[in-house]
Amino acid sequence: MPAAKGAYAKAGVDLAKVRGIQRSLATTLSATFRNRTEGAGTPLIAIGHYAGLVELGGGRALALHADGVGTKVLVAQALGKYDTVGIDAVAMTVNDLVCVGAEPIALLDYLALEREDESLVKELMKGLVVGAGRAGAPVVGGETAVMGDVLKGVGGHGFDLACLGAGVVDKDRVVDGSSITAGDAILGFPSSGLHSNGYTLARKVLLRRHRLDEFVPALDKTLGEEILTPTEIYVRPVLKLLRKVEVHGIAHVTGGAYGKLMRLAGRRKVAFRLEPQEAPPIFRMIREEARLSTKEMYSTFNMGTGLCAILPASELEEAVRICRKEGVAAGPVGSVGTGRGVYVAREKLA
Amino acid sequence: MPAAKGAYAKAGVDLAKVRGIQRSLATTLSATFRNRTEGAGTPLIAIGHYAGLVELGGGRALALHADGVGTKVLVAQALGKYDTVGIDAVAMTVNDLVCVGAEPIALLDYLALEREDESLVKELMKGLVVGAGRAGAPVVGGETAVMGDVLKGVGGHGFDLACLGAGVVDKDRVVDGSSITAGDAILGFPSSGLHSNGYTLARKVLLRRHRLDEFVPALDKTLGEEILTPTEIYVRPVLKLLRKVEVHGIAHVTGGAYGKLMRLAGRRKVAFRLEPQEAPPIFRMIREEARLSTKEMYSTFNMGTGLCAILPASELEEAVRICRKEGVAAGPVGSVGTGRGVYVAREKLA
Repeated sequence: MPAAKGAYAKAGVDLAKVRGIQRSLATTLSATFRNRTEGAGTPLIAIGHYAGLVELGGGRALALHADGVGTKVLVAQALGKYDTVGIDAVAMTVNDLVCVGAEPIALLDYLALEREDESLVKELMKGLVVGAGRAGAPVVGGETAVMGDVLKGVGGHGFDLACLGAGVVDKDRVVDGSSITAGDAILGFPSSGLHSNGYTLARKVLLRRHRLDEFVPALDKTLGEEILTPTEIYVRPVLKLLRKVEVHGIAHVTGGAYGKLMRLAGRRKVAFRLEPQEAPPIFRMIREEARLSTKEMYSTFNMGTGLCAILPASELEEAVRICRKEGVAAGPVGSVGTGRGVYVAREKLA
Repeated sequence: MPAAKGAYAKAGVDLAKVRGIQRSLATTLSATFRNRTEGAGTPLIAIGHYAGLVELGGGRALALHADGVGTKVLVAQALGKYDTVGIDAVAMTVNDLVCVGAEPIALLDYLALEREDESLVKELMKGLVVGAGRAGAPVVGGETAVMGDVLKGVGGHGFDLACLGAGVVDKDRVVDGSSITAGDAILGFPSSGLHSNGYTLARKVLLRRHRLDEFVPALDKTLGEEILTPTEIYVRPVLKLLRKVEVHGIAHVTGGAYGKLMRLAGRRKVAFRLEPQEAPPIFRMIREEARLSTKEMYSTFNMGTGLCAILPASELEEAVRICRKEGVAAGPVGSVGTGRGVYVAREKLA
């Protein structure tokens, strides 16, 4: 299906090229693993999982992850509303940390600005503070760089915001997908909307015929409000699940969306079979505007589910109960079968 | 001396505003310290030191720091030479980690690109790998974001590169400057050139009348070669010093240069008295081109010293010997006196 590549490439991001870059990065950077071969810092997992993992001593591992908000920053600029993208930055980082079973313990921010704009920074920090609260971790520092010749944006308000997170996990409690087996259930955690991925495509598609301040009846809000909605932070319910039920794998549905489930499979024969759910209105709107295929949609967007936990079918009921108690309406979104790949109904994504 | 503000402000960065932003950031983010008040992740040091420090358990602390290369990326683009700025990214991060006494154990990169440009990424990674080797730490992951509407640069090669580092230190071996006393010596570690700070000003000043490919006799190389020289990585000699002599404080000379020494003083009465050294030719060139004052130069550039270790005068000789053995020509650059402030000869910087 070359169309999948085509749609995003036309919007300015060639996903095939990006994946090539990521593979090349992983190979090159793996050479640095020999810099630490014993004691603290010894790498415990290959590059390309949701988070890096290194030996910490005392039976524990340190998880590290960095992530950014992507071109959602441009939506914030267009709306002049900067107080929530900090939540997205934290979410993108901590939701990946919990995917390896780690509890986030500290965060840093990295902020690059087109101009020294104190009010912009203050608003961005509001979101970081809220996000850090939801993640249960302190922001212990960060870097703010003013680079007018490197950043651009709307009306001089250009910025890029990323977050770095550290987490800890007992080495015998690391979740890496290696125990996933046919028959496992896939539990889906509802997303709050687009989250922080696919914005280059979503902006191009949606803003061709709509304005950000346009009220969209199907969304019951303006388009801008909808697509600036901050990314859900799943730390609390996931940590609760990890303590109470057996969990075989966790996937944060971000860039590359469901195609990335394969990183949990490694080289083993594992087939993730997703039961297509009714996607929230914003995804239907994008799909209709751009006439995208099921494969394109599920390879780019979260389609209403921001995180998947893969667990024994026997644990599903209890897991759902635990999530509900945490205020999260998680529910089954598929199962693991024989074969290899990621499928939505009969469509193979990856 | 409003001139100090003036010179950099004219070049496009208002340092006073940047400092205001940093203060405001520190206050706001400190509110997140209440997210962790016991166990792993409890903050151990106020925001604004060289690195964040949190409780790790087992008598150890985790140090975290993030930093970028700044507008040195534009020099790399103008020269089409990308294989060394990765060293700068690592240096900026790990040199800050050792300032709190921590040993770097793992790194991540954050790369934002104007276009998906695999050859650019490959070159950037070369530098990261070399830098990680010098730092003795693995790169365990990273984020690559393609954001054509957020990044700009020379000829479509726009990018921003940051590095995130984690280190560990025994809690009773944390170095935070609190033991600095009058009579201490300041040991200076030679820089390799401009390192990664002051480039917005340096580029404006130097490129007004010179070209990057111009051979400059005083430098014995082209201007481009000089200002792209990677930042020195001080991890090995500093860790050796920390093991063998008493060290009261360590300062990486970066943005804000020597003015930042005051962060080691906290609220105590400490006066850092720097003996002006003969600065390397590139600094003299900038000074002459821009007619900057001593205060402006020492508040912006490293002037030939990339890192300062503050230690008892009785340890100086042994410290110099240890550094020489590591191949580092460190030597005394000043002393700690009574009063409060940072002085170069009789000029007060901060």
